[in-house]
Amino acid sequence: MPLPAALLDTLRDIFRDDALSVAEAERLAYAYDNSRLSASPDAVVFPTEHAQAGALVRACREHHVPLVARGRGSNTTGATVPVAGGVVASFERMNRILRIDTDNRLAVVEPGVLNGDLQQALEPHGFFWPPDPSSAPWCSIGGNLACNSAGPRTVKYGSPRENTLGLRAVAGTGEGFRCGTYTSKGATGYDLTRLLIGSEGTLALITEATLKLTPKPSAVRTLRATYTDVGAAARAVARIMAQPVTPCALEFIDDVALKLARDHAPDAGVPVAGALLMIEVDGEPDALPASAEAVAQAARGDGLLELRVAETAAETKALWSARKALSPAQRKLSPHKINEDVVVPVSRLPELVDGVKRLAAKHALPIVSFGHAGNGNLHVNLLPRDDAERERAHAALAELFALVIALDGTLSGEHGIGIAKREFMPLALSGETLGLMRGIKAAFDPDGILNPGKLLP
Amino acid sequence: MPLPAALLDTLRDIFRDDALSVAEAERLAYAYDNSRLSASPDAVVFPTEHAQAGALVRACREHHVPLVARGRGSNTTGATVPVAGGVVASFERMNRILRIDTDNRLAVVEPGVLNGDLQQALEPHGFFWPPDPSSAPWCSIGGNLACNSAGPRTVKYGSPRENTLGLRAVAGTGEGFRCGTYTSKGATGYDLTRLLIGSEGTLALITEATLKLTPKPSAVRTLRATYTDVGAAARAVARIMAQPVTPCALEFIDDVALKLARDHAPDAGVPVAGALLMIEVDGEPDALPASAEAVAQAARGDGLLELRVAETAAETKALWSARKALSPAQRKLSPHKINEDVVVPVSRLPELVDGVKRLAAKHALPIVSFGHAGNGNLHVNLLPRDDAERERAHAALAELFALVIALDGTLSGEHGIGIAKREFMPLALSGETLGLMRGIKAAFDPDGILNPGKLLP
Ligand SMILES: Cc1cc2nc3c(=O)[nH]c(=O)nc-3n(C[C@H](O)[C@H](O)[C@H](O)COP(=O)(O)OP(=O)(O)OC[C@H]3O[C@@H](n4cnc5c(N)ncnc54)[C@H](O)[C@@H]3O)c2cc1C
Ligand SMILES: Cc1cc2nc3c(=O)[nH]c(=O)nc-3n(C[C@H](O)[C@H](O)[C@H](O)COP(=O)(O)OP(=O)(O)OC[C@H]3O[C@@H](n4cnc5c(N)ncnc54)[C@H](O)[C@@H]3O)c2cc1C
Repeated sequence: MPLPAALLDTLRDIFRDDALSVAEAERLAYAYDNSRLSASPDAVVFPTEHAQAGALVRACREHHVPLVARGRGSNTTGATVPVAGGVVASFERMNRILRIDTDNRLAVVEPGVLNGDLQQALEPHGFFWPPDPSSAPWCSIGGNLACNSAGPRTVKYGSPRENTLGLRAVAGTGEGFRCGTYTSKGATGYDLTRLLIGSEGTLALITEATLKLTPKPSAVRTLRATYTDVGAAARAVARIMAQPVTPCALEFIDDVALKLARDHAPDAGVPVAGALLMIEVDGEPDALPASAEAVAQAARGDGLLELRVAETAAETKALWSARKALSPAQRKLSPHKINEDVVVPVSRLPELVDGVKRLAAKHALPIVSFGHAGNGNLHVNLLPRDDAERERAHAALAELFALVIALDGTLSGEHGIGIAKREFMPLALSGETLGLMRGIKAAFDPDGILNPGKLLP
Repeated sequence: MPLPAALLDTLRDIFRDDALSVAEAERLAYAYDNSRLSASPDAVVFPTEHAQAGALVRACREHHVPLVARGRGSNTTGATVPVAGGVVASFERMNRILRIDTDNRLAVVEPGVLNGDLQQALEPHGFFWPPDPSSAPWCSIGGNLACNSAGPRTVKYGSPRENTLGLRAVAGTGEGFRCGTYTSKGATGYDLTRLLIGSEGTLALITEATLKLTPKPSAVRTLRATYTDVGAAARAVARIMAQPVTPCALEFIDDVALKLARDHAPDAGVPVAGALLMIEVDGEPDALPASAEAVAQAARGDGLLELRVAETAAETKALWSARKALSPAQRKLSPHKINEDVVVPVSRLPELVDGVKRLAAKHALPIVSFGHAGNGNLHVNLLPRDDAERERAHAALAELFALVIALDGTLSGEHGIGIAKREFMPLALSGETLGLMRGIKAAFDPDGILNPGKLLP
């Protein structure tokens, strides 16, 4: 459906020629994201200034036309697919790092800055921004914030919600606003900053972010532990998290994933085991041996096969090889992989991995589990190879979510809801909670133009 | 104004005799808080269960009667003063620690649990809950959450917003709900948890909280640095925060405050200096000497008078004596002290302390500054001794806030807004931002019964 002519005229006033496109090719390029779902927008615009974003929202609102913010489209839930058509606003060109202020441990960035570019810019200052999705080289800070994206370091350093001081944004009303502070604490009114973080572009377009920086620890030590079975590894995770030294990464890989990785890269030195833990500890060099030993001690226990500590950079790299070989291996096996990122309290991990095994057996389906075990956050990937398996995978998925909720967990640790998990939201949240969320949505976006069809069922 | 008879009947159904009072004495006891403002409620109730809180809100809503949640009334902003009458709900009897779950690094508590009691209960497990207001022994977790209260440790460990996983609550609509997770990360919908934190009882009554626990560091080292003048100390703070070792306390005391403390407690060993910094570093014993040295190195610089490191517990105690003598000293000087807790980016602290000095001179008024310098959060206390000084103090206050905003800071770091700072909110937040906050208020509390007259101007 083409846009109303009057809206198109207004968009032409707001955006220069090369920042607005209604061409078929461009519309196709912005139709899909990493979910592999797809729906064509009617126009694509490339804002580079806050004022443009404001004018854009007001114009779309006036014409009741859907507006979908987009970073780099790397999300896995269909969160940027314009299911109701309308305008996609790609922030990829609004990508300046406006300020790196290490005295105040903050950086001010535009939303299109890539996570990896920011980390590189911070490196010489001895600081980093903790959220570290593995997609860091090609995902944007705006997307990270909108999804509350995280990674291995989150277990020690927190997610965007713990690492953002303030935002500038345009609400669905068309009003620009600032929230949060340039200070490292504040108690001045409601926390709109955290409310926007994780809201998946449904409340406001983020046009600027003030990020909290963390000093880079001076040293890291890497450990790898293998276990006879997934239960033994999961119990080790719970033990590691119950002692005082918090690792800066605590990643889990199950036996199916290890086998896949071995088959895919036979020479990568991926060990034969029932499960594997990658553990990293960081800090001051003087403290590191003691910290590593405390964690190693907790990693030891029933079912441990081998515990290796990397002594050199090359050894560290070798230890990570199994983890690195995982993604390509899975992609090869199943183009229709269903990529979940459920999360449970760490002590319930053994029950979760057991449950996943049972689901795989019951539905006769390859399922691999790996991920950020220190947060109880597992990427449970269902890998159907044909139509029959795809159907069974959908049944298994519903049972997986039910299991996770029964274990006091929730649907998503870091990928968010998008379209993919929208229908499951009532499993995790009561009608009252969802009702309050809808009330907030109505306050920020009374006409429902921002990213319709996402997040809220 | 007595309550409608029908409402009183309903309250009698909800609360047992000893959990409901309309007696004058009890109403007086719950009329004021630490702000010294006062207004009598029409009734006081003492919920002990979530269901009671729900029935209470619904009853008050039906009769359009104001309802003010109260922990221990230790807030400094009038946040619990029932300015519009109605019912005060004191959560002091709903004070069970429901679960301490160190495997998952969380505790589930009722809102009336005292901060100090929780810390004591956590102590044998080797964990703590980071928010540490100096009022810890007599303030409640519910109050801490509702104000986003903090303390010296916040510089390293964060405020309630960084240390809370989930909440149970009753919105102003009367609907009970849960938000957040039992997991250490999550991306399942809007962040209602953080929205309630810092909302000062204006959106919902908190009936249960799932708190994120942190392992207690095994060792602490205390340093005290004195400087020729406040500027030199403020510059040292900025230097300390710009290097990688984050102290677990970085407290500042200005010359006026030091003199007050010396006059009040001549034998406490409070040093003569232009300003003083108390610095604590924590961590593993092996790393502590290096960390302390890194911080000491940053503390050294122009204007340093003396840097002392405590070697024993007794010495540590002696170093803290100046800080401890502060509160009673001020109370003696001025019963009408105006207790502010403004916050600026750490690098602007020198300008803030200079500006405060100028205000004190201009208005001929005793003003002391001290507080959580590592967060840029200063308690600027105006100490008027007579009516003329009280008048000048009010003029000085407006100028103080203007200064703070000009320095990219904000009105409150941890005490919140309440009645005291409500009129200044438009200095810190734009009309658009306040409008969105009002929209959220309307969604949670459509009839405006929860803590009316607070926070939002
Ligand atoms: C190989 C691979 C590995 C990955 N690994 C991880 C991982 O380890 N951890 C993890 O959490 N995720 C991971 N992801 C998912 C994805 O990379 C993250 O969700 C990322 O944060 C998305 O960023 P993006 O710029 O691509 O955003 P997009 O996908 O373009 O958008 C994501 C959401 O953000 C919204 N949005 C984007 N910009 C704005 C803005 N300026 N204002 C308002 N809303 C906006 C969109 O509307 C959408 O709802 C991975 C993805 C891939 C492909
Ligand atoms: C000597 C002294 C030292 C202090 N030091 C500090 C300090 O270092 N740092 C700091 O931040 N503060 C400090 N304070 C202020 C105060 O102690 C904190 O704000 C504290 O968190 C208030 O807790 P309370 O239980 O007394 O809450 P109250 O004062 O009773 O209430 C505070 C707010 O919380 C709301 N509230 C209470 N319970 C609930 C609930 N269950 N649901 C919803 N809303 C609720 C109330 O409506 C009110 O808005 C100090 C106070 C004193 C007297």
